[in-house]
Amino acid sequence: MKKKIKDILKRGAIQVNGSLWIEGNGTHFFGPGPAELLEGIEDTGSINQAARKMNMSYKKAWEIVNRLNDKTVNPVVITAAGGKKGGGSTISEDAKQMIAYHRLLRERFRKFLEQETLRLK
Amino acid sequence: MKKKIKDILKRGAIQVNGSLWIEGNGTHFFGPGPAELLEGIEDTGSINQAARKMNMSYKKAWEIVNRLNDKTVNPVVITAAGGKKGGGSTISEDAKQMIAYHRLLRERFRKFLEQETLRLK
Repeated sequence: MKKKIKDILKRGAIQVNGSLWIEGNGTHFFGPGPAELLEGIEDTGSINQAARKMNMSYKKAWEIVNRLNDKTVNPVVITAAGGKKGGGSTISEDAKQMIAYHRLLRERFRKFLEQETLRLK
Repeated sequence: MKKKIKDILKRGAIQVNGSLWIEGNGTHFFGPGPAELLEGIEDTGSINQAARKMNMSYKKAWEIVNRLNDKTVNPVVITAAGGKKGGGSTISEDAKQMIAYHRLLRERFRKFLEQETLRLK
């Protein structure tokens, strides 16, 4: 009879953990960071402000937005050039769908990790 | 009717990917790297040689071994001090069980990622 993994490991706060992202042709373009950035843009109407909230550089935020727009059929972040409000950005309906999808994906992943952690108890 | 995520993303080699590890009190102590190192020690009978095969420093390899031994009831790597063969290391039966467990864990994770990737097609 083989030993179970839970009898090999010490008792304690042991858990299976991980990270998850979506990639296209090897480029990570979506995950917790980009999802949070999209939510921030929705809330603030500004890539700059959304980035600041996350302690992220404006450059990094733009890279994330460009990678997202590059992998989606229609742009997920729409930036108004100039105008009375001097620009500002909004997210598309598609972006809102992606945020909703990401929440469900994370929930399924959380359950997977929870099940795997239970095996260790 | 809401748009499906697969209609939002461009066609192409899009996949859900991720990483997975086991942690105890917040310290990552087991995952693909440590599993490969244990296998290397089993094959070569030496932490040093196992590390070299992975382009890993001896210091890093020892850190991994110490973290593992710290989280397990019995040491998983046993190092003989001196003797005719001048030391050398072996892995315990528990270590072999951990390698086997890790293979199954990775297989379940691979299936999870595969299912999630299928949702995007």
